Amino acid sequence: MFEKLKQQMDFLYEVDKLKSIYRESRLINDPRHENDSEHSWHVALMAFILAEHSDEKIDVLKVVKMLLIHDIVEIDAGDVFLYDEKANEEKPEKEQAAAKRIFGLLPSQQRDEMISLWEEFETRESPEAKFATIIDRLEPSALNYKTDGYTWKTHDVPLSLVNKSLNKTHFGSEAIWQYIKGIIDNSVEQGHIRKD
Amino acid sequence: MFEKLKQQMDFLYEVDKLKSIYRESRLINDPRHENDSEHSWHVALMAFILAEHSDEKIDVLKVVKMLLIHDIVEIDAGDVFLYDEKANEEKPEKEQAAAKRIFGLLPSQQRDEMISLWEEFETRESPEAKFATIIDRLEPSALNYKTDGYTWKTHDVPLSLVNKSLNKTHFGSEAIWQYIKGIIDNSVEQGHIRKD
Repeated sequence: MFEKLKQQMDFLYEVDKLKSIYRESRLINDPRHENDSEHSWHVALMAFILAEHSDEKIDVLKVVKMLLIHDIVEIDAGDVFLYDEKANEEKPEKEQAAAKRIFGLLPSQQRDEMISLWEEFETRESPEAKFATIIDRLEPSALNYKTDGYTWKTHDVPLSLVNKSLNKTHFGSEAIWQYIKGIIDNSVEQGHIRKD
Repeated sequence: MFEKLKQQMDFLYEVDKLKSIYRESRLINDPRHENDSEHSWHVALMAFILAEHSDEKIDVLKVVKMLLIHDIVEIDAGDVFLYDEKANEEKPEKEQAAAKRIFGLLPSQQRDEMISLWEEFETRESPEAKFATIIDRLEPSALNYKTDGYTWKTHDVPLSLVNKSLNKTHFGSEAIWQYIKGIIDNSVEQGHIRKD
């Protein structure tokens, strides 16, 4: 049992690196970019605070676990900007290798559980994965909204690309989807997202 | 329902500030200090990865929720260094006011739930609070261990103070407690904690 704990700790030391993987989003009250561990904390919190808005019955612990681990593969594969279409095509292979290496540090049963949970998230089909997906999109939209469209403006992202990136995300929660749509409409109105 | 979502979002925007509350711990692979949101992510992840080592039966979702919100009061009250005894005496009052203001942004039922969960954590008596407490101490011990005793050395913390600060933390898990003791023994041996 103590050997198992030591092996689990090897994984928990390794994932400290998630704190140094920076994203395109900016913090609301601080001009620096957000990192993946901060994002993961924020979405996990959002998931249980907003759980009642899920359209389907969900296992909240499963959603929270999913969100706490969903970006760990980026330790090896890097953060791929949502609007970089080419980089997104190459992503799955790199992330599979990363999942194998990093979750592979865990005892075998837990390794399999974590890989399976991460794959379930990526497939976006179960009620939990659908809800985790909309939360994962809500957070950067919310940060963009509160920073006058920082990411959209920095990369001159047009409305068509914002809409395309949100294409498959609205299944988890109609209420949250309406909220995100409100953010986007407002951002277009304010000139923080460019019409095309 | 949509009004409720908007109110929940006001809370979720406010807590973005947790990403700018810095702690005394240093990251393992990066010489900067860790912030509270990163710490909260790491402990929430530790809690479900290490849940089997709890000495008592625990509701894992409750522990994870507790750890995701446990430091939110520090947005107003600041991070108090574990080894600063005077500052720790003044902490409870400031944190109570912070809990009232920040969780008070939530719809009333959820506000009450969150305040009660945070108070349960602070009381350190339920099985969930005991397990959350040892995890909350494991994380900075682990970061110190992997950074050659960074915090202990920076503040010249003697062994007696390290032991005193861990005084009431060993109830949650005998296995994790043995692991933390191993870290401390090793750190004394390596000269990263000063004997007194």
